Amino acid sequence: METSKRTEIIELAIRARERAYVPYSNFSVGAAVLTAEGEIFTGCNIENLSYPAGLCAERTAIFSAVAAGHRKFQGIAVSGGMKGEAAKDFCMPCGMCLQVMSEFCEPSFPVLIVKNEQEVQEYQLRDLLPHMFDSLDKG
Amino acid sequence: METSKRTEIIELAIRARERAYVPYSNFSVGAAVLTAEGEIFTGCNIENLSYPAGLCAERTAIFSAVAAGHRKFQGIAVSGGMKGEAAKDFCMPCGMCLQVMSEFCEPSFPVLIVKNEQEVQEYQLRDLLPHMFDSLDKG
Amino acid sequence: METSKRTEIIELAIRARERAYVPYSNFSVGAAVLTAEGEIFTGCNIENLSYPAGLCAERTAIFSAVAAGHRKFQGIAVSGGMKGEAAKDFCMPCGMCLQVMSEFCEPSFPVLIVKNEQEVQEYQLRDLLPHMFDSLDKG
Amino acid sequence: METSKRTEIIELAIRARERAYVPYSNFSVGAAVLTAEGEIFTGCNIENLSYPAGLCAERTAIFSAVAAGHRKFQGIAVSGGMKGEAAKDFCMPCGMCLQVMSEFCEPSFPVLIVKNEQEVQEYQLRDLLPHMFDSLDKG
Repeated sequence: METSKRTEIIELAIRARERAYVPYSNFSVGAAVLTAEGEIFTGCNIENLSYPAGLCAERTAIFSAVAAGHRKFQGIAVSGGMKGEAAKDFCMPCGMCLQVMSEFCEPSFPVLIVKNEQEVQEYQLRDLLPHMFDSLDKG
Repeated sequence: METSKRTEIIELAIRARERAYVPYSNFSVGAAVLTAEGEIFTGCNIENLSYPAGLCAERTAIFSAVAAGHRKFQGIAVSGGMKGEAAKDFCMPCGMCLQVMSEFCEPSFPVLIVKNEQEVQEYQLRDLLPHMFDSLDKG
Repeated sequence: METSKRTEIIELAIRARERAYVPYSNFSVGAAVLTAEGEIFTGCNIENLSYPAGLCAERTAIFSAVAAGHRKFQGIAVSGGMKGEAAKDFCMPCGMCLQVMSEFCEPSFPVLIVKNEQEVQEYQLRDLLPHMFDSLDKG
Repeated sequence: METSKRTEIIELAIRARERAYVPYSNFSVGAAVLTAEGEIFTGCNIENLSYPAGLCAERTAIFSAVAAGHRKFQGIAVSGGMKGEAAKDFCMPCGMCLQVMSEFCEPSFPVLIVKNEQEVQEYQLRDLLPHMFDSLDKG
C-alpha cells in the first residue's frame, strides 16, 4: 500500500464515522477500504431497531466496493468511538467483519486500527483471524 | 417517483445482477435504490463461505446509500435469477431486507419487482411487511 | 393447535422473557414454538456487543427445535417489552424472524402476539409476510 | 473440563451433524457446548433460502444454552463435513461464531475441532480470535 493511500484511508475512516446511523448504541464506527485498483470505498455502521439486521462499518465499505465490481483489496482502516467524540481507544473489527474479509482478502491483508491520525495500530488479517473457516472439505 | 427515474432504477437493477458475487448459490440478484435527493445506488448479492455472513442485493444498495449520507428513499427496484440468465420469475425481497427497509422507509415506499423491463410488479412496503416490528414500547 | 397447547405457549413466551440476555437494549422478548409432534421449545433474545451478531427470541426458539430434529411447527407465541416490566404493547416479529418462519412453516402458520395472558393478537404467517421470497426460479 | 465430559461433547458434536438442515450447501456441521453447570447443549447448522438468515451449529448450541438460562461455558466441540459422510477435515468456526463465543466465554475457552473421535485439535478462543472487539470505549 502506498504511503499516500495509507494516509488517505486513515483520514477517510475517521471522517466516515460522521455518517454512522447509530440511534441505538450511539457508538459510531467508520471504515475505508482500498481496492486493488486503487479506489477507496468508505462505510459506517448502520443500525436497525432489530439489532441483528444492522451492519458494521467494515462490511458496509467492503460490500459497497464489491457491488461496484471490486474483488481484491489492498487494505482497510477502521475507527470507532462514542458518537460526536474523538475515538478514545482502538476499535477492533468484530468476528463477522473478519469473516467477510476472509472471503476476499489474503492472510497478509493490512488492517489499520485508527485511534487518530497519529495513533494507528497495524495488523494483518491473519493476526486477527488466524484459523479461517475454509472450504477444503467442500471441494 | 418520476417516470424517468423509475425506468432508470429498473434498468440498473437488471444490470447490477452482473456484479453479484454468488459462487455458492449461482443465483444473482441486483437492486437499485433512489434516494430522496434523486441519487441512485446499486447493489448485488454478495455471498460468503459461511452463508449467514453474506448480504442481499437490496441491503447492499441501501447500506451503500446510507454510508453516503442518505436517510430517505423514493423507491427500490429488484431483479433476480440464475446467474448469466434472464430472470424467469419475480424475485421478492427476503424478510431481512424488508426489515432494513422498514428502518428508513415509509409504509408507502415503492418496491418494484423486475422480471424484465416490460414485466414489473409494483408493491408498497406495507404490502410486503404489513405489521412492522416497531419501537412503541421502547420509548 | 389444541387450546391447552395454545395457552401453554402463551404462558411460556411470557416466562421466557426472564432469560433474555439484553445488556445493550434492555428490551426483553420471549417466544415459545409448538412442534408438529407436540413439543414446545422456548427462546429469548440474546444480544451481542456487535449488535448484528445477536439473535431474536423467535429464531432462538425455532432453531433450538430444529436442532432437536423438528422441521414442522403448529404455532408460535411472542411477547416483548422493557426488561423487568410487563409488556405494554404487542411486539411483532422482525423481518428476519419471519424469513426463518417462512423456511419451515406454511402460510397459515399461527403467530400469537402476546401482551399478557388475556390480550393476545393472532395472525397467520401470511398476514405478516404475504409475499415470501421463494425458490421457484431456482429449481 | 473433565475428561469424560470432553469425550461426551466430542461424540455429541459428531452426532449432531445428522440433524443439520442443509438443503442448499449439503455441508453439515454439528456442535456441542458444555455449560459451567455441567449440562450439554447440541446444535447443527440450519440454512435458509435467503442464505444470510441461516445459523451455524456453534451458535445454535450456544443460543440454545443461553435460552435455557446458562451464561458461562466450559468448552465447545465442532465437527463438519459433507452431509452423510465422515468429516475429512478440521472445520473451524466462522468469525460470526467466534464473535458470539467472545460475548460469553473467556479467552482461555477450549474449542475442540473434531475430525473424528481420535483426531481432535484443541484451541483456546484466544487462538482463534486474538483481538476481540470489546467495549472499553463504550463504558
